[in-house]
Amino acid sequence: MSKWVYSFGAGRAEGRADMKNLLGGKGANLAEMSNLGIPVPPGFTISTEVCTYYYANGHAYPQDLTEAVLDALAKVEETMGARFGDESSPLLVSVRSGARASMPGMMDTILNLGLNDVSVEGLAKKVGDARFAYDSYRRFIQMYSNVVLEIDHHHFEEILEAHKDDKGLSLDTDLSADDWKAVVVKYKDMVERHLCKPFPQDVKEQLWGAIGAVFGSWMNNRAIIYRRLHDIPENWGTAVNVQAMVFGNMGDDCCTGVCFTRDPSTGDNNFYGEFLVNAQGEDVVAGIRTPQQLTIHGKNLQRSDLPSMEEVMPEVFKELNAIRHKLEAHYRDMQDMEFTVQQKRLWMLQTRTGKRTTKAALKIAVDMAREGLITRKDAIGRIDPTALDQLLHPTLDPKAPRNLLARGLPASPGAASGKIVFSAEDAETWVKDKKEKVILVRVETSPEDIGGMHVSQGILTTRGGMTSHAAVVARGMGTPCVAGAGEIRVDYNARLLKVAGKEIREGEVITIDGGTGEVFLGAVPTVQPELTGDFATLMEWVDTIRTLKVRANAETPLDAATARKFGAEGIGLCRTEHMFFDPKRILAVREMILSSDEKGRRAALAKLLPYQRQDFVDLFNIMQGLPVTIRLLDPPLHEFLPHTDAEVAEVAREAGVDVATVTARNAALHESNPMLGHRGCRLGITYPEIYEMQAQAIFEAAVHVSRETGRTVTPEIMIPLVGAKKELDLLKASIDKVAAQVFEAEGYAVKYHVGTMIELPRAALLAGEIAESAEFFSFGTNDLTQTTFGMSRDDSGPFIGVYREKGIYEHDPFAQLDQQGVGELVKIASERGRATRPAIKLGICGEHGGDPSSIAFCQKVGLDYVSCSPYRVPIARLAAAQAALGDSSGSGMH
Amino acid sequence: MSKWVYSFGAGRAEGRADMKNLLGGKGANLAEMSNLGIPVPPGFTISTEVCTYYYANGHAYPQDLTEAVLDALAKVEETMGARFGDESSPLLVSVRSGARASMPGMMDTILNLGLNDVSVEGLAKKVGDARFAYDSYRRFIQMYSNVVLEIDHHHFEEILEAHKDDKGLSLDTDLSADDWKAVVVKYKDMVERHLCKPFPQDVKEQLWGAIGAVFGSWMNNRAIIYRRLHDIPENWGTAVNVQAMVFGNMGDDCCTGVCFTRDPSTGDNNFYGEFLVNAQGEDVVAGIRTPQQLTIHGKNLQRSDLPSMEEVMPEVFKELNAIRHKLEAHYRDMQDMEFTVQQKRLWMLQTRTGKRTTKAALKIAVDMAREGLITRKDAIGRIDPTALDQLLHPTLDPKAPRNLLARGLPASPGAASGKIVFSAEDAETWVKDKKEKVILVRVETSPEDIGGMHVSQGILTTRGGMTSHAAVVARGMGTPCVAGAGEIRVDYNARLLKVAGKEIREGEVITIDGGTGEVFLGAVPTVQPELTGDFATLMEWVDTIRTLKVRANAETPLDAATARKFGAEGIGLCRTEHMFFDPKRILAVREMILSSDEKGRRAALAKLLPYQRQDFVDLFNIMQGLPVTIRLLDPPLHEFLPHTDAEVAEVAREAGVDVATVTARNAALHESNPMLGHRGCRLGITYPEIYEMQAQAIFEAAVHVSRETGRTVTPEIMIPLVGAKKELDLLKASIDKVAAQVFEAEGYAVKYHVGTMIELPRAALLAGEIAESAEFFSFGTNDLTQTTFGMSRDDSGPFIGVYREKGIYEHDPFAQLDQQGVGELVKIASERGRATRPAIKLGICGEHGGDPSSIAFCQKVGLDYVSCSPYRVPIARLAAAQAALGDSSGSGMH
Repeated sequence: MSKWVYSFGAGRAEGRADMKNLLGGKGANLAEMSNLGIPVPPGFTISTEVCTYYYANGHAYPQDLTEAVLDALAKVEETMGARFGDESSPLLVSVRSGARASMPGMMDTILNLGLNDVSVEGLAKKVGDARFAYDSYRRFIQMYSNVVLEIDHHHFEEILEAHKDDKGLSLDTDLSADDWKAVVVKYKDMVERHLCKPFPQDVKEQLWGAIGAVFGSWMNNRAIIYRRLHDIPENWGTAVNVQAMVFGNMGDDCCTGVCFTRDPSTGDNNFYGEFLVNAQGEDVVAGIRTPQQLTIHGKNLQRSDLPSMEEVMPEVFKELNAIRHKLEAHYRDMQDMEFTVQQKRLWMLQTRTGKRTTKAALKIAVDMAREGLITRKDAIGRIDPTALDQLLHPTLDPKAPRNLLARGLPASPGAASGKIVFSAEDAETWVKDKKEKVILVRVETSPEDIGGMHVSQGILTTRGGMTSHAAVVARGMGTPCVAGAGEIRVDYNARLLKVAGKEIREGEVITIDGGTGEVFLGAVPTVQPELTGDFATLMEWVDTIRTLKVRANAETPLDAATARKFGAEGIGLCRTEHMFFDPKRILAVREMILSSDEKGRRAALAKLLPYQRQDFVDLFNIMQGLPVTIRLLDPPLHEFLPHTDAEVAEVAREAGVDVATVTARNAALHESNPMLGHRGCRLGITYPEIYEMQAQAIFEAAVHVSRETGRTVTPEIMIPLVGAKKELDLLKASIDKVAAQVFEAEGYAVKYHVGTMIELPRAALLAGEIAESAEFFSFGTNDLTQTTFGMSRDDSGPFIGVYREKGIYEHDPFAQLDQQGVGELVKIASERGRATRPAIKLGICGEHGGDPSSIAFCQKVGLDYVSCSPYRVPIARLAAAQAALGDSSGSGMH
Repeated sequence: MSKWVYSFGAGRAEGRADMKNLLGGKGANLAEMSNLGIPVPPGFTISTEVCTYYYANGHAYPQDLTEAVLDALAKVEETMGARFGDESSPLLVSVRSGARASMPGMMDTILNLGLNDVSVEGLAKKVGDARFAYDSYRRFIQMYSNVVLEIDHHHFEEILEAHKDDKGLSLDTDLSADDWKAVVVKYKDMVERHLCKPFPQDVKEQLWGAIGAVFGSWMNNRAIIYRRLHDIPENWGTAVNVQAMVFGNMGDDCCTGVCFTRDPSTGDNNFYGEFLVNAQGEDVVAGIRTPQQLTIHGKNLQRSDLPSMEEVMPEVFKELNAIRHKLEAHYRDMQDMEFTVQQKRLWMLQTRTGKRTTKAALKIAVDMAREGLITRKDAIGRIDPTALDQLLHPTLDPKAPRNLLARGLPASPGAASGKIVFSAEDAETWVKDKKEKVILVRVETSPEDIGGMHVSQGILTTRGGMTSHAAVVARGMGTPCVAGAGEIRVDYNARLLKVAGKEIREGEVITIDGGTGEVFLGAVPTVQPELTGDFATLMEWVDTIRTLKVRANAETPLDAATARKFGAEGIGLCRTEHMFFDPKRILAVREMILSSDEKGRRAALAKLLPYQRQDFVDLFNIMQGLPVTIRLLDPPLHEFLPHTDAEVAEVAREAGVDVATVTARNAALHESNPMLGHRGCRLGITYPEIYEMQAQAIFEAAVHVSRETGRTVTPEIMIPLVGAKKELDLLKASIDKVAAQVFEAEGYAVKYHVGTMIELPRAALLAGEIAESAEFFSFGTNDLTQTTFGMSRDDSGPFIGVYREKGIYEHDPFAQLDQQGVGELVKIASERGRATRPAIKLGICGEHGGDPSSIAFCQKVGLDYVSCSPYRVPIARLAAAQAALGDSSGSGMH
């Protein structure tokens, strides 16, 4: 008989923290806290294996589950001294989801379960508060009906509003016990009308209904989208936690709150949290009431007028603070905890590794390593490399003029400008269809808004705190967010917001600073971030660990300088065609393409030579002797020709030919499949003069810079789209010839290397042969992915979404290297290349070069370097260190 | 010291027939004939290793070559009793190329070498004929100057014409010894003016100049093109044969000729040949004089008025006929021989395996096997599979009306119609640029015309015999040819031909029948060939040997019937999209594409269902229980939409939508790289209803035919463009569901198999996993070649020619499977597929399935079947048998 259910509470538990895969994060940590002697309401966890069984067996449970649940429930009854459905001392429970990875708000929860017409009276007697009991009952009916019975909220709201109107009441708190009793009767009638059967009075039926709803919610749309966005496999499943209810809403000696062992925004080692007096836990997370701070320090920092818990309930606060220290020391990481105080008694409802801003993650990791709580290697493993992105993007220029509109909470750092929209749907439409950058403005956000939040530049809410839905989700996404900007009034119908006597309409531009909580009218210029402090410290540690070199893909002096600043150790890919599009040069490029013979092409190329030479002089100067890999011209020539009639006419005029010539050349160069066409080294083979000019520019620049600076300049010349050794041989011979001519003419020689992209399956397979001539390989995994999958990046849009929904691709193979297919080719090529030429230098320059999981693969295959966009260099450095540590999956902080 | 030079003649030789790689074909066979005691003028062969050395060492010879040549020359002098450059008994030699494979007319030859101002007198005295001696001397000067000294022909022709004009003479034969003496003086003066030094009088200088010219001609343009067309590797090199001259032009007791041991056109076991009295050998091959027949039988057959050799020189003929039998018995194959009779003495100048028509090849192979000269396996190995093509193409419909224009020689079988052009260049232009089918009409052809001959449907000449350049080359190419149609007068300038009082201009259509030698005005309808007799016999033998099954790619009933007739053992690829283009159906197809939702698509598909079902009913009926592999829809949907404005308007009207809808759908479906786009199983994944309809049609048809005929019908359903196992899983599940529904509804079930194309590198690499779900693999090597090379077939035109010229690709990878790259993927996929599912059925259905070298590869990898176009089925059967015999290179008859 399998074990499906794990009990916890009363100082012991059947589970442990390291059983997350089985018990989910919440369940495992409730068990762990129980074992640590921390007060946890007793309960039990139905394991994720039951979820897997449920979906594998047509939504049926294992045969022996019922018995196990009832046994575990009996233990809870025993511990709590209460009985499920009892008429005098009824046990109430919560039923919550709990997956291996946190999916906040994505799945269903039911509270106050166990109430029926009988037990509600028991509860009223037991707590001596009939109003509380009936309020709880009506909440339960509403929640259960909505989640399990699928009856919409508004039916309940209408009844409640009607009752208030009848009685002339306006606030929920104005309602008496009898009011709630009456409402409960109306609720039950309404449910019965809907279902043609009464609201379930059997508490066990209630329990199984709730368990089924939680398992069912694993496959709801929100959860599916969330998993796709966060790369959470479907087959993990969720656990279900059934736990005795404790109440934070039984009076003013009750409260409920959420807290972090350190500040999740800054990483400062301050106890940080929010709580609400006389409230249920969901009220804090939902952001419906603006909460109070936990500490006096926090109150001052947030300029809050409300008293802190430290002041209001000093004893309980002390107890909570002790648990804070105990948990952080035990877990050796910053914890995010939920608690409830029921009539002065503290109960811990949850602990988990706290989400944090990247800035906080850095600070916490570095601080903890310095405190001796963790090692430097642990610290490196704690940072999600992709999240570094947040730190690397611009913040507001402090000197720029700005027009402050409002101030809210600094809920997720970073600055962003955009046109305002007032719904998540509009955000998606504007971004996808109109290609606009938008700021999503909402009173508050809910899980339904996740899609719109994802595409927005920034998020602004007028209600809710730092742990509100908007704040938590935005931090997870690395999207700037200002939350709870209460001065702002949003009018959804009129599509405008009002603040400080102004009306700002949909489509107008605002800027938010998620680091300060400020909101500005119009666009505010930004500046580059300072890469010092904790960032610099961690990067120093990272560089002592990693073995993979990190280069950047860069062609402009600005790119190259940025790359250097971010610690790039060379240029892994300089795409020379980008240099051809410069307005000063494009005319000569087109003149070359329009020439009918080699002589004409050479004449046009001669005009390009001085520009190209200067490009390389600049790059060599900036890179100061670091390696620079220059890829010769790659795209098909038609990319340089104009296509609209007006452009054609202009080019004809500029080039001094007639329109028909340009049109004819356009037609002649048209390709059915340009990706597989006359490009890459095929251009070099058919028009040798193009690569000769480029080689000449490279060698002249290298000689110039080397002679001027006395530094070694060793250009690496890279031939694209090689599929046969002989292509490389012919082009290398021509490059060598140009080199000899330049060195002879200049009376000065430099070393150089000639190598090739490996971006075709054939090149990977024939790498052993190609390595006879190539001094280095650079894996062009963008094109290699396209050819290996037979899938064009530009054309995959209409089906790749469906492919991810249906689980055909777990990841977008253009974002994350496909290790099975493309990866095998990389591995084959590396092995065969090294077998021929043991010292061959191997790198990757596709966009995968900046993706952590792909970098881990590169480490495993034994590449020498990765090359990525300048802004991703720090990410790659960190990912490379994590890969070297064998932590190929990155941190668990995703 | 390496051996560079091999002597032969006088009944013994240093070489042998099996030393072709070293001595070239001509040299090896001269040696072999010498060893057989056949009269061969003595000489020596400079080996192909010298050629290789020459090109590897900047056109220098091995140090010890000079001595070896002089030694060998001395032996020839001894045998002939003559001395090189001697004033009384001079030795004259020919210097000829001789490569491993015959390259007729492609390289240089020099005759009469050894003549100078002194030895010409010696020759005159020795033969007692000053006119002959000086005529030979002027011929030598002209040839040597042209080939070695690179002085154009016309300079010599002008001098000769001027001399004739001065003397009032019109024919060369009118010139006296003194005339030729005077011409020689003028020739030498002219040469001296050109070169600023005299014509070389040193006979050894002449010899080395000639040897250098022959080696140099290995790399001339004609030779390079010929090698490319015939897949002859450049590194084979040529040998040089230096051989004592014998003269067929010393009077009427002299002659020269070319003969075949059997008729090279029909394969009949008749001695066949042509000769010219009082002529040099080159005169026969050049086709300048219309030659006489060798035998009385031949004379009658050709309706020639000229006497045969059998009549004119009966004794020598008898001797020649004896040599014919000796050589054929010795070589066990039909021989092509050259001979010269000098004053009644017979000398054999060459023997080699004779080129023949495919019809003749079949007859000779079958006859020789029946005669016991060779085995049946030998017979199978003797036929070039690709050449079978000639037999399989239509001939003129005997009942069709025809308008006979002229009659020539039946030089290469097959019938063809086309627009006439008068130059090889025009042929290339019309075919490539205008996409016309052309008949090339020339007075005679020369090696320069090879490119134009290759692209023409047929070749017609007005001069020359069955062994003329046009005839030999056309037979090699399998192109129909009528040669020597003397009634026709060609006017190149006016671009017309005149015959029977008619003028026929460039661009008008004629038809030639290369099997009868007839030329018709206009296009004449054709009929299918009879596949009986020798063909049927050989095919029977073939089928007992081969282990690979041969299927056909077919979708129409006509294709399927043709395939069956040619012996196909099933359909390996039925492309269902071809069925969608039928005018009756395309409207429903477009309606489906234009539908905005699944319901609309299903409604349109329902209209297609009956058509598709009938397609499959027809195919299953024709194939009578043989396997039929049906590929579900593959091309992107935009291929079915119209593109011109007029078509768009028509479709909008037909489909009952507005033009804007069609235009918008066109735009939405536009793809940058359709080859890599939304096609293949990606359509099945995103629009499951399409594949469901196709599966339903297949199963309903299979049930229908199986029930009606009582035959087993086992459809094989093939999913295209699979790259991940899950694609196949999803689609297989849907097919299985449709199958269950159809079988349930019909109350009748059939077996079926679901498998996949392997046409993406990723599919090949993941074949082990894919084979868990796939019951068969069919290698789609067209697309696999495109993705492995990253090269679109449609777009490779502008560079693939350059690639072949530069030797980057030895073969067009779309015609001949690239064994290194694509082949490795096929091998990997086969191994991994078999490892998972040992009984998996493996086939190939790319166009390579009909290419012999690719079929040999398929045999080696262990595929179960190949599938090719119906007309290539016999080729594939033969190639499969040769592959089974381990004769992976095909016959040497290319």
